Amino acid sequence: MNIQFADRMGNVQKSFIREILKVTVNPQVISFAGGLPNPASFPVEEVQKATQKVLNDDGNNVLQYSTTEGYLPLRQYIAQRYLKKKGLIIDPDEILITNGSQQGLDLIGKILLNKNDDILLEEPGYLGAIQALSIFEPKFHTVPLLDDGIDINSLEEVLKRCTPKLFYAVPNFQNPSGITYSAQNRESVANILKNTNAIFVEDDPYGELRFIGEDVPSMKTYLGDNAILLGSFSKIIAPGMRLGWICAKREIMEKLIIAKQASDLHTNYFSQRVAYQYLIDNDIDNHIKKITELYKKQRDCMVSMIEKYFPEEVKSTKPEGGMFLWATLPQGFSSLELFDIASKQNVAFVPGDPFYINKKGTNTLRLNYTNSTEDKIEEGIKRLSEAIIGLIK
Amino acid sequence: MNIQFADRMGNVQKSFIREILKVTVNPQVISFAGGLPNPASFPVEEVQKATQKVLNDDGNNVLQYSTTEGYLPLRQYIAQRYLKKKGLIIDPDEILITNGSQQGLDLIGKILLNKNDDILLEEPGYLGAIQALSIFEPKFHTVPLLDDGIDINSLEEVLKRCTPKLFYAVPNFQNPSGITYSAQNRESVANILKNTNAIFVEDDPYGELRFIGEDVPSMKTYLGDNAILLGSFSKIIAPGMRLGWICAKREIMEKLIIAKQASDLHTNYFSQRVAYQYLIDNDIDNHIKKITELYKKQRDCMVSMIEKYFPEEVKSTKPEGGMFLWATLPQGFSSLELFDIASKQNVAFVPGDPFYINKKGTNTLRLNYTNSTEDKIEEGIKRLSEAIIGLIK
Repeated sequence: MNIQFADRMGNVQKSFIREILKVTVNPQVISFAGGLPNPASFPVEEVQKATQKVLNDDGNNVLQYSTTEGYLPLRQYIAQRYLKKKGLIIDPDEILITNGSQQGLDLIGKILLNKNDDILLEEPGYLGAIQALSIFEPKFHTVPLLDDGIDINSLEEVLKRCTPKLFYAVPNFQNPSGITYSAQNRESVANILKNTNAIFVEDDPYGELRFIGEDVPSMKTYLGDNAILLGSFSKIIAPGMRLGWICAKREIMEKLIIAKQASDLHTNYFSQRVAYQYLIDNDIDNHIKKITELYKKQRDCMVSMIEKYFPEEVKSTKPEGGMFLWATLPQGFSSLELFDIASKQNVAFVPGDPFYINKKGTNTLRLNYTNSTEDKIEEGIKRLSEAIIGLIK
Repeated sequence: MNIQFADRMGNVQKSFIREILKVTVNPQVISFAGGLPNPASFPVEEVQKATQKVLNDDGNNVLQYSTTEGYLPLRQYIAQRYLKKKGLIIDPDEILITNGSQQGLDLIGKILLNKNDDILLEEPGYLGAIQALSIFEPKFHTVPLLDDGIDINSLEEVLKRCTPKLFYAVPNFQNPSGITYSAQNRESVANILKNTNAIFVEDDPYGELRFIGEDVPSMKTYLGDNAILLGSFSKIIAPGMRLGWICAKREIMEKLIIAKQASDLHTNYFSQRVAYQYLIDNDIDNHIKKITELYKKQRDCMVSMIEKYFPEEVKSTKPEGGMFLWATLPQGFSSLELFDIASKQNVAFVPGDPFYINKKGTNTLRLNYTNSTEDKIEEGIKRLSEAIIGLIK
């Protein structure tokens, strides 16, 4: 038999990170490559208690099919938290529970994108979004990131060349760069987008993980119904439960629900019930405080080790939250070549290439600090510095 | 803002059954409309124990991100069960864990279907498959079902008119009709398909729920690698855990894994671990025996009440397993009209229309017996008979 796959599969690469992670199977390797939360932060006992409670009290319902939209009390909880944390007034019916926020990307692509539709992404951009949206064969246009957010001039330029349906971005502690858009930058971006038909998709998996500075308003504050929000419990409870959500106005939500139902009927109801029970029986803000204290130490350690060991020609970001920082080698040096040298010295990271739409041999790299001890961070950065010196000197 | 949705969304209807189920919110209504397993069959205590065990023993891993393919021991378990129950030799790497088998349909559509590709479905066909595959804008062609399976003459005819990429079917206790393909019918279908490039997608959510007769070989027995199998734990453990799987040869599996990763990274790992622990700590065959004993009583009750009360012009199937039976009114009468009459008499079912690609005003209807007590089945069939008599006499 001769199998003809769909054209759309020609656009989607096997995950580069998946290949990278093969190097990290070797226990000798110190890996800054993954994007994993620190399992020490998982509320295992509390999840146990929550599970017992929901199964004891309502086991037959907890294990049954449920609604496509998701468990209403969980959606109400999310709506209330938007009000409390961001001052956003959201109706629970504008929230759909998804299998992690990654599924939100798939559903948004499904309902909005025809082949060759223009879309905007940050450069560098989140790899999972590039992968998810590639399935729908859009034309990607990118806008560079500066230290305080989107490069406004580039945004204005690109909007002269295309008519994007959506702009996907991670304004808080961006993946991969770790940068956060300033309030002023957000307002400028919003003012420019107001004159277009582009929906701003604000993905915010790390927003609660701030350890320095003050929160900045959501893009929805400026854009109202022209923003779609993606959220996730993966970084504040646990990723294994695969719980995220989309928040969108009703006209969009109606289509999202149809697409979600066609995709998998509904999100795991057992997990939804356990997560909700966990949230109402525990002080999540206190739990988040513990996580950010842990991550701040790890971030501080990586930043200071970089200052201590990296050659000064190498620049890197100093994130105020989240899980990643981003380093830039001097022009002309390839982080893929660095990867080969570094892996021989038993240290791994993600080279920049997969975070760009059409660039190869880039001089950037992503470093994760949340899933290493301080000892490993010191030793790993030391090894990486040696590899960098081997490459550039 | 003027939102332009993707063309593909024009092909997908809001779920008809969702609308139907609104009638059943009224507690006076006896509903044969849903497709729910009986919650009395859910192993709540055993799931509790399994959850405690996996969280106690390995909580930090159970709550972490995991692999796209799914938990290897669970895939090994499924492979071993295929060998034991169906004599099929499957490599665990040919199995991908999905969010229920519904997601399998989405992934298969994603990797195989271009717009206007021909595909084959049974008539009547599974509504969830029509919905999931519609997203990819194929040309649907249908082949009628007879009492023992596919209408072979019609299959030969339709293959003269089109070149299908896949043939989606539910050969065991089909949804909606309740019929099962005979071994001879399967062999005939396979012999015809061998000369084509059509992949046979065998969806088998109910296959383990046989209460009369003997198992019939899987289509994969005849078609080998040209069959994709979809399976589910929803009917033998619990649907709230959203665990299903796809079994496909490596060439196809490689693409499925890419599509799965783009869609939602991986299936809920917490549920996968709990389900696996449940499976190894309990006698699943004994548990399935309890379910089928329960469902057999309900099925027997519905069949005998139909014999007792329905006018003899109404024909209905007598399923050997599964969750549904299918009734046919005399020609010219519409089951949608019957639905209106019946809902006034506080009994609900699913009219046939949504199970057909392009037919309206059909004279068929689906009845679910697994989620009612015998008392309710008797009273509901009595009410439905009165509605039928009101319509046809």
